[in-house]
Amino acid sequence: MDQISANRSFGGTQSVHTHQSIVTGTPMTFSIFVPDHEPGTRIPLLWFLSGLTCTHANVTEKGEFRAACARHGVAFVAPDTSPRGDAVPDHADYDFGKGAGFYVDATQEPWNQHFRMRSYIEQELPALLAEHFPVDMARQGITGHSMGGHGALTIALRNPGRFRSTSAFAPIVSPLNCPWGEKALGGYLGPDKSAWREYDACALIEDGARLPDLLVDQGDADTFLHEQLKPGLLVMAARKAGIPATIRMQPGYDHSYYFISTFMADHIAWHAERLKRD
Amino acid sequence: MDQISANRSFGGTQSVHTHQSIVTGTPMTFSIFVPDHEPGTRIPLLWFLSGLTCTHANVTEKGEFRAACARHGVAFVAPDTSPRGDAVPDHADYDFGKGAGFYVDATQEPWNQHFRMRSYIEQELPALLAEHFPVDMARQGITGHSMGGHGALTIALRNPGRFRSTSAFAPIVSPLNCPWGEKALGGYLGPDKSAWREYDACALIEDGARLPDLLVDQGDADTFLHEQLKPGLLVMAARKAGIPATIRMQPGYDHSYYFISTFMADHIAWHAERLKRD
Repeated sequence: MDQISANRSFGGTQSVHTHQSIVTGTPMTFSIFVPDHEPGTRIPLLWFLSGLTCTHANVTEKGEFRAACARHGVAFVAPDTSPRGDAVPDHADYDFGKGAGFYVDATQEPWNQHFRMRSYIEQELPALLAEHFPVDMARQGITGHSMGGHGALTIALRNPGRFRSTSAFAPIVSPLNCPWGEKALGGYLGPDKSAWREYDACALIEDGARLPDLLVDQGDADTFLHEQLKPGLLVMAARKAGIPATIRMQPGYDHSYYFISTFMADHIAWHAERLKRD
Repeated sequence: MDQISANRSFGGTQSVHTHQSIVTGTPMTFSIFVPDHEPGTRIPLLWFLSGLTCTHANVTEKGEFRAACARHGVAFVAPDTSPRGDAVPDHADYDFGKGAGFYVDATQEPWNQHFRMRSYIEQELPALLAEHFPVDMARQGITGHSMGGHGALTIALRNPGRFRSTSAFAPIVSPLNCPWGEKALGGYLGPDKSAWREYDACALIEDGARLPDLLVDQGDADTFLHEQLKPGLLVMAARKAGIPATIRMQPGYDHSYYFISTFMADHIAWHAERLKRD
């Protein structure tokens, strides 16, 4: 693992790292913020999965998470959203291919060789972080934005007990029911929609997956709200399943980091409360 | 004036605007954050002048100022650092020409036609802001980073009484005594160094200019500290002049926005205290 940069910030260290991924077969880059803490101790870890077109850098630069992470003593990891490099196939559109890994393990040619972001986020990167950073893997939370909100919800739903806390910013709640999802899951997984259900938060809940609770913020001026995001589907699925979900519509907010950063400290406090319980 | 964008953020509006500047003879872009406030009232205004290579966008995206500005009810304006456009002469180096206006009115060909950032920041933009935004021009503060810290200090020193509060992040405190300053002031103002003194915070103080007080943060891991920034010169000038200056060395911090954002809320609180006194 190579350290690309390290900057002191908010009484901690914000660093960026690259490593050769076995599951994607490419170099992968991530950032991690580790606030100062008692030497020899391990601190809770919050995952942030980013949205379409993003790398680790977007939330690292614009997410405004470090003040709250330092206050609560929580580390914050931001992975990339897809494999990268000349060897990786791509697509001309912003919502498929590089920058649009959708946190799936692709089964369709030519995507299945490198687009294995599910295994990367669920298996490979956690093992790497546990080895190299002072993080407590018994105290993990997960959040994300848009495509990354979809990633956070589906990964938490498929791995019960792994995350003590799950939240999302403007998540894609049901790829089965929106153009972004139909394009991505159709392309990566093929036309059989039964294979898509493990990558759809609402379908996972319908099929029996549960979370202890859930926090979602969604701007009501988000231009993707009605066609792509559809938080009402998650409200219904959670209600039917008895999952206590706090899904807040935020008046006037859009899909940008100006929205995410506004509610970031709230989410971190919410995660920290759950991550620090005995 | 054209509005380029507007995003709801931290209970306020972050917007970007372009207007045709009379003094630079070019379009100029700036951003402004206006937190929600009682209709019909005017709120204090904090200026942030940016450093070499920056536009309005750097601090707008990475500065982490909105939470504190919303909490204290302070508007925050971020101008560009130079004129822009194909008609504007440039230089191959990052530290002269576009992105490096140094907040001077150039006197030397070919720079003197457009590089008039002093008049733009001191005269034209304040008048425009007072006309179009709910800001109280009797309650202005000013800060900035690096070249912009130099801008904030020199503009405040030359305009006594205009700013109730002045601070800086890693400022260039004496262009007369560093390579960045020698190159920029030599190029824009010519070889007669007596003409540089009104653009040098330490020289202005030596020549009698005063501030009621001053807050400066400087990282001790800043790679520009010893050759370019030299805060010790400001410490000495302020001490000799009896200006109460709080100049803090921050261990481990560098010159980046990871440093600026860490201390931004402190600076805004410090300005707000002074801006809100009756």
